[in-house]
Formats: sequence, C-alpha cells, structure tokens
Amino acid sequence: MGSEKIKVGVLGATGSVGQKFIELLVDHPWFEIAELGASERSAGKKYVDATNWIMKSPLHNNVADMIVKACVPNFESKLIFSGLDSSVAEEIETDFANAGYFVISNSRNHRFDKDVPLMIPEVNADHLKLIESQPYKGGIVTNPNCSTIGMVLALKPLHDAFKIKKINVVTMQALSGGGYPGVPSMDILDNVIPFIDGEEEKMETEPRKILGKLGAGEILFDNDIQISAQCNRVAVIDGHLETIQVEFESKPSKDEIIDAWINFKGEPQKLNLPFAPKNPVHYFAEPNLPQPKLQRDLENGMAASVGRLREDALFHYKFIVLSHNTIRGAAGGTILNAELLKAKGYLDNIV
Amino acid sequence: MGSEKIKVGVLGATGSVGQKFIELLVDHPWFEIAELGASERSAGKKYVDATNWIMKSPLHNNVADMIVKACVPNFESKLIFSGLDSSVAEEIETDFANAGYFVISNSRNHRFDKDVPLMIPEVNADHLKLIESQPYKGGIVTNPNCSTIGMVLALKPLHDAFKIKKINVVTMQALSGGGYPGVPSMDILDNVIPFIDGEEEKMETEPRKILGKLGAGEILFDNDIQISAQCNRVAVIDGHLETIQVEFESKPSKDEIIDAWINFKGEPQKLNLPFAPKNPVHYFAEPNLPQPKLQRDLENGMAASVGRLREDALFHYKFIVLSHNTIRGAAGGTILNAELLKAKGYLDNIV
Amino acid sequence: MGSEKIKVGVLGATGSVGQKFIELLVDHPWFEIAELGASERSAGKKYVDATNWIMKSPLHNNVADMIVKACVPNFESKLIFSGLDSSVAEEIETDFANAGYFVISNSRNHRFDKDVPLMIPEVNADHLKLIESQPYKGGIVTNPNCSTIGMVLALKPLHDAFKIKKINVVTMQALSGGGYPGVPSMDILDNVIPFIDGEEEKMETEPRKILGKLGAGEILFDNDIQISAQCNRVAVIDGHLETIQVEFESKPSKDEIIDAWINFKGEPQKLNLPFAPKNPVHYFAEPNLPQPKLQRDLENGMAASVGRLREDALFHYKFIVLSHNTIRGAAGGTILNAELLKAKGYLDNIV
Amino acid sequence: MGSEKIKVGVLGATGSVGQKFIELLVDHPWFEIAELGASERSAGKKYVDATNWIMKSPLHNNVADMIVKACVPNFESKLIFSGLDSSVAEEIETDFANAGYFVISNSRNHRFDKDVPLMIPEVNADHLKLIESQPYKGGIVTNPNCSTIGMVLALKPLHDAFKIKKINVVTMQALSGGGYPGVPSMDILDNVIPFIDGEEEKMETEPRKILGKLGAGEILFDNDIQISAQCNRVAVIDGHLETIQVEFESKPSKDEIIDAWINFKGEPQKLNLPFAPKNPVHYFAEPNLPQPKLQRDLENGMAASVGRLREDALFHYKFIVLSHNTIRGAAGGTILNAELLKAKGYLDNIV
Repeated sequence: MGSEKIKVGVLGATGSVGQKFIELLVDHPWFEIAELGASERSAGKKYVDATNWIMKSPLHNNVADMIVKACVPNFESKLIFSGLDSSVAEEIETDFANAGYFVISNSRNHRFDKDVPLMIPEVNADHLKLIESQPYKGGIVTNPNCSTIGMVLALKPLHDAFKIKKINVVTMQALSGGGYPGVPSMDILDNVIPFIDGEEEKMETEPRKILGKLGAGEILFDNDIQISAQCNRVAVIDGHLETIQVEFESKPSKDEIIDAWINFKGEPQKLNLPFAPKNPVHYFAEPNLPQPKLQRDLENGMAASVGRLREDALFHYKFIVLSHNTIRGAAGGTILNAELLKAKGYLDNIV
Repeated sequence: MGSEKIKVGVLGATGSVGQKFIELLVDHPWFEIAELGASERSAGKKYVDATNWIMKSPLHNNVADMIVKACVPNFESKLIFSGLDSSVAEEIETDFANAGYFVISNSRNHRFDKDVPLMIPEVNADHLKLIESQPYKGGIVTNPNCSTIGMVLALKPLHDAFKIKKINVVTMQALSGGGYPGVPSMDILDNVIPFIDGEEEKMETEPRKILGKLGAGEILFDNDIQISAQCNRVAVIDGHLETIQVEFESKPSKDEIIDAWINFKGEPQKLNLPFAPKNPVHYFAEPNLPQPKLQRDLENGMAASVGRLREDALFHYKFIVLSHNTIRGAAGGTILNAELLKAKGYLDNIV
Repeated sequence: MGSEKIKVGVLGATGSVGQKFIELLVDHPWFEIAELGASERSAGKKYVDATNWIMKSPLHNNVADMIVKACVPNFESKLIFSGLDSSVAEEIETDFANAGYFVISNSRNHRFDKDVPLMIPEVNADHLKLIESQPYKGGIVTNPNCSTIGMVLALKPLHDAFKIKKINVVTMQALSGGGYPGVPSMDILDNVIPFIDGEEEKMETEPRKILGKLGAGEILFDNDIQISAQCNRVAVIDGHLETIQVEFESKPSKDEIIDAWINFKGEPQKLNLPFAPKNPVHYFAEPNLPQPKLQRDLENGMAASVGRLREDALFHYKFIVLSHNTIRGAAGGTILNAELLKAKGYLDNIV
Repeated sequence: MGSEKIKVGVLGATGSVGQKFIELLVDHPWFEIAELGASERSAGKKYVDATNWIMKSPLHNNVADMIVKACVPNFESKLIFSGLDSSVAEEIETDFANAGYFVISNSRNHRFDKDVPLMIPEVNADHLKLIESQPYKGGIVTNPNCSTIGMVLALKPLHDAFKIKKINVVTMQALSGGGYPGVPSMDILDNVIPFIDGEEEKMETEPRKILGKLGAGEILFDNDIQISAQCNRVAVIDGHLETIQVEFESKPSKDEIIDAWINFKGEPQKLNLPFAPKNPVHYFAEPNLPQPKLQRDLENGMAASVGRLREDALFHYKFIVLSHNTIRGAAGGTILNAELLKAKGYLDNIV
C-alpha cells in the first residue's frame, strides 16, 4: 500500500446498513470515507441532519459534516459501498458500474446476475474473477444474505472435506436483520415471529451459487445439495443463531468435523486482510454454546461460532452456528469483499 | 355427575406446576381442592405463607388458608394431582399409589414404567386401560413433556391418516417451561439459549410410547418412527413454538393434511370433558401465524395451533406448531387426564 | 334500557385505538358497532382487508366484513367513538359535532377547548354538563392522556379528603402507549427511553382541568396544585407504572389514605355502568406490588392499582400507581364516558 | 511505578462482582491477580471448575487454572479486593484488615463504620485519610451502592458550586445489579418490579457520608441535604438510569449547571489513574439521551452520563443520570479506589 488511502463512497448512507459501513470504516487502514449518497430527500443536507444515527459508537465529526449527495454516478471515489434498499439498488448500482465504479453491494438485487460474484472471501475467493466478464466499465460484487453467510462459513470446510448432500436449517434471527425501524417492539416482546419474508428462499438458493464452481463467465451452481430452510425472528438485538443438520457423501467422524472447523483458513487469512478474522470458525465444546449475547462479537463480529455437534437420527450430524448478522452478515462482510478486490489488484488503477 | 365434587389433593403445591393446578382447578365443575402437600419445610404452614404465589390470578381465599401437609399418603382425597419435583416424585407417587390413591402426575419419573400410561387424551385414550395392570391399590397416570404434547397433538391426525415415518423438530421454548425461578433474566434477555437439559431425549422417545399400541399390560412402542429434536430457550413467557418436518408412508396433499387437522376430534371432545378444547388443533392460513403471544391462550390454552404448512425439500412437509406449555403442556393436560379417568369410571368408588 | 342497542360508529377504526374500541365493544350491552371510518386509503374496502389487526382477540366476523367509510359526517349512527390521529382529529371531530353527532374522543385535540369536558367519570362526572354549552348540534367529550388517567384516579379520593397541593410523578410507560408500529424493537430491548414527546406537559396540565370546578360554561382550573412529571418508556407491553409523591394541605395518616382509596366510589359505580370497575382503586399492601404484568388486567383493565404507600422525606407521602393504558387509559375510558353520557340521558333522542 | 506489579487477591471470586474484578483486572497496569478466595465449597478447586463464568470476555487461562483458597487471612497478596456477599463480608473483611491486609471492598457491611471511608475518588478523595484512624494493622476502604455512585458523581460538581439542599431520585435499575442468578426472567420480562430491598435506604443515607467533611477520625455527615429515593428494577442488562430533581441554596442558571458538569475533574483525573475516565460526567443535549444501551459503556463504563436538564415546578431543576452499575457502580469503582490508595502512597510498603 502507498501511504494514501482509497477514497470510498457509501450509497444508502442514512439506512442501517449504510450507518454500519460508516461505523466500521472509520479507522480502516486502506479505505477512507469521502462521499455519502442517499435519497433525494436527504441530498444537500449535512449527514448529521439527514440521518437518525442509531449506531452505538458516536458519529465521527468528519462524517457528520459531509454533505449528502444524490445517488447518481458523479462521485469522485471510484470504490462504492452500497447499502441501498432493494427497491432502488438494481438501477443505481448498474448506473454506477456502467460509469466505471466498483460497487461492493450488500443489496440482493444483483446476487443472481450471471456474471456477478456472490462472495464470501473465505469460501469462494476465486469467483471474484467473474468480474472480468462483466459488461461494465467498473464492476459489481455482492455478498449473500446475512443468514446464509454464517451457515456457509461453517459448512465450507465440511463440504471441501466430506462433500455435503443435504442441509436442513432452522434460524432464530436477530432484530437488526430487519433494518430500522424494522420489527415493532409490540410484535416481538414476549414473542417469536415465525416468518421472515423471502428469507427461506434466499437460504435455499444462495449456497448453491456460493459453493458452485467458476465456469466460463458464470458460476456452475452446486445443484447436488438439497437445502431446506425455516426462518424465525426472535427478541435478540444482534446475532443469528441457526440449528443445522447435514448429510455428507460419506459420514466423517466427529473429530474429523471439529478438525476441519478448527483448521479452516481461507484467502482472507492467507492475505491477512484487515477485516479477516484470525479463524473464520470457532468451535465450542460446552453443551450450551454458542449463544448470541456471548459469542456474537467474537473476532470483532467477523467469525462464525459453532457448537453442540452431535450425531443425528435423520441426518449424519446436527450442530448450531452463530454469526453477527450486521457485521459478518452485512457491512463487515462487504468490506471484506472490497479488501479482497484491492488485494487482488482490481483497484490498482483507481487510487 | 352427582351434585358433590370429588375432593382432590395437590402434591408439590408450592411449585410452579402446583400453583398452576390450583389456579386452574379453582372453579372446576367436577373437582374441588381439599388438600395441599409440599416439602417438610412448608408442611404445617398456611398455604399463603408457605408459597411465593406467581400466578396471574389472585390466590383464592379458601386455598390461601389451607394448612399444607407433608407428602405422605394420609390424605382424605383419593384423587391426587402431582406437580412434584422429579427428585422426589418417584417414591412419593409410588407410595400414594400403593396406598390406594389415583395419582395423576406431571412429573417425568413414571412416564416409562411399563404399566403406566403416558397420556394425551385426544391421542391415546385407550392406553388408560393399562392402569388395570398396575400392581397398585390405586394407580398412576402420567402426561408427556410440555414440548412433546403440542407436537403429538398436531401429528396424531396425520399419523392416523397417512402414517408418519420421520419427524424432525426444532423448538423455541418459553421460560415458564423451566419452572420458577428457572432461567435467570441476565441469561436470556437479548439472547437465545440453545440447550435444555434432557429435553431433546424426551421429544425423541415419548412420541413412540404415546403413538404406540396397547398390548397385554404394556404399550408396544411405535419404533418405526424416526425422530430428531433440537431444543432452544427463547425470551417468551408462555407458549412453545416448534418447527416440524414430517415424512409419511405416502405423501398426502396439502388439503388432505389441513382437513385432517380441522376435523380432528378425540375422546375428550366426544365425552365433552370440561377441559377439552372444542378443537384440539387449529389451523392458520396466515403466513406468519401462529405466534406465542397471539395464539397461546386459544381455547383457554388447551388447543394446539398449526400453520405455515408447505412442501419441503428434504421431507414431505414442514409446518409450525404452538401450544401453551404450562396449560396444555402441563397442569391443564394433567387435569384433562383426570377428567378422562373420571369419565371412564375409574373414580366411581372414590367419591 | 330498551331491547335495542345504540348503533355506534368508530373513527380511526384501523389504528390501534380504533381496534381496541372494536375489541372492547364487541359484546357491549348498550352499544353496537354499526359503522367504521378511516382514511381515504382504507375507505371502500372491507375492514378485514383495510386493517392490520393486532389485537389479541380474533376479529369478529360481523366487523371484519363491514365496508370502511371515509370520515365524513354522513354516518347513520349518532354516537361516534373517535380514535383519530391528532393530525386530523380536530377538524373531523368538529365536523361531526356540528352535524349533530356525539363524538366521544380519545384524541387530544379538543381536550382544552373551553366548553369540552375532559372526563374521568369517577372523578368529574359533573363536568359533563359542559356539553350543554357547546355550540355544536351534537357534542364532544374527551378523555385525558393515558398516563394522566391512572394517576388522577388514585389522587381523586385523596384530593377530596385532604386537598392536594403538590404532585410529583415519574412514569415507566408501556409500549402500547406509543401506538402501532410505535417504538422500534431495536430501540427498547435491553433499554429505557427517557423521553416521550409531549407527555410530561400533558401530565402537568390535564389534572388541573379534570380536578377543576364546573363554572358557567367552562371549567375553573385547579391551579393551586403544583405538578411535575417525568416520563419514560420501558419494555412492557401494557400497563403504565408511576411513582408518585404528594403533599396535602394537611397531612393525613397512612390509614386515612388507605381508607380513602378502599372506599372510593364514583358516579359509574353508583350508576352501575357496564364498564365501571367495582372499585376504581385497589390497594396492595405487599412491598413489591402492583406490577404491570400482575395487576394491569384487574377488573378487566378498568381499575387503578396502588401500593408501596410510605412517608417521604420531601413530600408527605410517596406511592406507586398502575393502570392499563389502552383500556382504562384509552378505549375503555372512552367507552365509560359514552356510558355516562347515555346514563345521564344525553343520548335519549338518538336511538 | 517500578516494573513489578502489585499482587492482589480477590475474595468472593466466584460471584458476579468477583468475576467482574477478574475481568477488569486482567490487563491492569499496576495490579496482578495472584490469589482467589471463595466459599469452603469452592476452596481447593481450580477456579474454572469452581465458577460459572458469566462474563462476556473469555476467562483468562492464568486465572482459570488458579486453585481457589478459603477466605482466611493467609494470602500472600497484601491488597485484597472483596466482592463477598454481605452475609459473610463483615467478619472476613475485618479478619483480613486485622491481619495487615488492605481490603478494598464492594460489600455494604463496613460502609458506615465510623473510621471507614465510603469512597468515590472524584468526590471525596480526602476521606481516604480516615484509614489512618483505623485500628487495623491493614485497612478497609468501601465504595457506595451502585445506584448511589452515578447520582453522586453527577451531583458533586453542583454541590460544590451551588450547594444542594434537596435531592429527589427515582431509579430504573438494571438486572445485573441484582447479582447472579438474581431476578428470574419470568418476573421481569414484560414487567417492572417497583421494589429493591434496602436500596432506597442506601440512596437516602450514603450521600450524606460521601458528601460529608473529614473530621477527626470520622466523617461529619452532610445532614443538611434532604433525600428521597424510589427504586425500580427494569428489563435492562446493565446501566442504572435515574431521574433526579434538585434544589440548591441559590438557583443557578442552566448554563452554569452544564458548565459545572463539563468542567468537573477530580483527584483521579489529576493523578491520571488508570481506571479514571477522562471526564467523570458527560452532558448530552439531545432530548432523549442518555439511554442505558447507548451510553453505559462510555469511557469503558467509568463515566456518568447526564441529560434532559430542565427547570422543574417543584424543585429548581430536573435531569437524568446514567451509569454502568457493575463497572463504575461496583468492580470498576472499587479498582479506582485501590488505584487512589496506591497513588497516595498507602501501598508503598506492601509490594
């Protein structure tokens, strides 16, 4: 790295994902927030006046005073983080990419575009090459849904070693996954909401692309894996907990599974990316761990935690996975994608 | 019925199940609380002084002033409700049964005794006959674990019509299932605890006895059914919510399943027992129902609610079940057992 | 009463107060829901399609199928319950009153109109006469803010007997007081919000009108009472809890205060109004009662509960008050106002 | 400081306060955990086996393997942190002090001993001299109750500048203040408990000693201040929020009060003690701040936050205070006391 940081823009800056980008990027060693984009209603205002800041860390003064721009591709920063709402993300992200920007997006709109990588850097760093097939002057990289990311992180080393055939997952998802204002308090206090619109479909399809193989200008989906997902909202602020059952091509031992988790390292660990957790997956032997409140912040919220591994009557094994949905599962994961892009040289001529 | 009510005793009267018995029995048309038993520490005291009343309904004056007895078989009441802790239930319940009492128990100790029925009156009313094989002068009847009851209520009509081969269940269980004081608030606020000691084992074994056939002096377990259970504690006061996946001998249509639920009636409905819900199972077509806070009190907490029925990638169908764990799943279910006992004539000579 | 019920309309029928009116009126002995009014967006639709029903009781079929009307004074029902949002209530309620309707409102807009009674029937039933001074062909009656009602119910018997000079109140208010969707879950789980916009001002002014004397066409405010209020939102579904300190003209004994509470009866009790609690105020001697979860539903949510009475270092006494904010403090209180109107003969010629 | 750290012992090491000591001391620049004491039941076991570790940070390996000792004064460490339960603290702390140990205690037992300082280092650092009047070979220093500390931190600069005559406080206190297991979840979810045993008495008496003057071998209590406290438990994990009303000898302006808070520095700030917050009191101008979830961790949980300052109808001013009850209000405050002891030279000959 030269001494100069890469200037970045954040689209959807006033939303909860946008705010998380800002909170997490504030001291980033490679990137520097230079521009903020939001809706027409916010454009022209100081960020501090346009936003209802709901992050725990105080809003940094530099950012507070920035004048919010409209989301049109006249930004100076060539690297763009998008936390745009899916109702507008499709067109705006395409516009920016066409105009030469690299859009690293947390929105779902482009996830299944043939030539757009759906990235978890520890899992499918090689998919990044797909960006070269894109028709854009710039490029688009997406990350998966928050509930998919933790699960696939935990499954990747097992899939590599023992080949997974079936995945059965039931989630207990945190409130922050619903954005802000999101779930009304009267609906969730003393309650569980057994439905999250569109969530089960995402969990049943995204893993097939993420775990697929890079072909010529597209991903060959791993359609051998059968997946069933059931998603629930619980009264937890942050941290998605998931019960998972898996069946493999051939059944490994418990120790082999634990070893696969403990020894798992991906490209971000090898490249020593700033946001990379030291270990992407942490295994807990205690009978009642991991728990959202206790493990969600592990490795600054970038690691997945697994535990309760045991043999199952209907599948080979069952276990639980926990990951921080707004860090690893959203803004933090997106930043890791951008770091990979930088480390792989794609941003060399935009500084 | 004659005009006189059957006098009943409650063992473990100061505990949370015991209190629920007292709350539910206060206006019972057939039974009348006459005696209360608790630990030596409480014996001799007025009930109101011996107990930390945590029920929502105010403690009835008649009961408040009763002098608590020790749990020894010198009660006048021949019908005994037991909410005893499992650490002491085994011996005390046996003593009472030997001494001629009919013990209707919510404790787990005798559930797997060869000659003790594990009863859900809508499901296996015929098992009650087993009581005649017991060596006791009186008898013992048990009910299943709270998380088992709701599930089996929902599965029974499907099993009868389409024969279930596999059951996969993940629970989100209420705090009241852990008794009182139970789960510390610091452990569960903003959290999920993915472990309930012994619970998964109960859910994986009890259904085989409940759904089994009455043989000669024993139940022939339904060991054809494969069951896997994963149990979690969530920040909900009352109402266990369970995600269920099932596979049948031959796959019915969605409508056939819904019809089976809607038309389900059991012995308590036919006998018009006082605590019997009009419909043991209520089907909801809304995509986000049932929910603990909204449906737990349906039919005074005695009905199970089902919803979100949909085809599944790994089993034939998936759906969710909700039932009130301390009413249908504990004290209310036990009272229904006693009502069946009475309706079947077993209590005729104890009045 | 004749055999025929009075037909009533509900304005703001799709909102949370409107829904509560519908839930509470469903079996009312005097009133019958005949018409529903809501915003232009809802008008013309079936109620069940226009509303997101969030009440615990299922929506009654009769009401579900009613076609929602716009809020213009072309209703057949002459008695109108208004749960309108304050942004539109002022004009609509005035229009209805001018057109001959009796508007019983839970909105704040007309509370301080010179000739509009701000009613708690146990406290100031005589203020109802004010309606005769109104310029309307019909009339308007309002009820106070939810946090005011419980407090004034508890203070009225003390004011009558010992004359209150100073009131100091700190509230811990329930989520349902904020309407729906109201407080976002991410803001209140594991938190307290020490601010409710406009609430403290209401608590510091409304009691002076409620406790004032009926003059000629206006209320002579009781401006001798000094009041300070501090309002907080806590993670409770229903039930406002308030710590109160009072100073009297001359200090009574503790027993005199308790006696005043226990013996308190108002006009609704004398008239035996259907929604009147048997006792408007219930006193608890236990050191830790009343609590929202345990006492909010007392007398169907229409009674206030008081407890923890003790001498104070800075005022004469301190104690706590609890009341159900959406029943006694809103829809239920409004219905009681309408019952008083009926009992006093004001509705005689509208049936 | 020399290069060597002072070895310290922790009494009551398995309790929640003891665990917090261990969590906070793990990287302390001056102190090093060398010995752990707990009940006879734990003595002889490895700490990791004797304790149910409930802190969020993982238990440090060095500490995990320590063998727990009985609480008898045979420790090598001369500096002792006591988180003992009040049922045993009185005698054990006296024994240690008699035997030459300096006991820095969070227990309430010795708080009102004539010659024991009740310390908040920013408030009454001069009281530490009292230790020289103690009959012990070593010494005892105590810190106030968790709900007192935040309040007095906020009041001290106002008392110095404008002399406080009356304090009226209502608290909304966090669950962690009740220790572990503490408040049962079934009691507090969807509820407020308006009673904390002994808490109001502590808040009404402790400030008089803390704000008193150092006399000859005793503190001359500030009995001119009149105090009334009302204490409530709310569903918040950490952070006590308090509404406060004050009356002064002469009423200052709002700006004068804010200036007093902003400029407040005490002895810990002047001495630059490791655990001292940069600013003991942080003022917030936003209408809805501070809030427990948002501000409790300010300055590592060692600062008090104030806000909502406004004129009051019954006192001069009202405002709110928030502080972290287990850090500033307990273990962290105790550590700051020990740091002051060290900085003032009292520990010079124990290294």
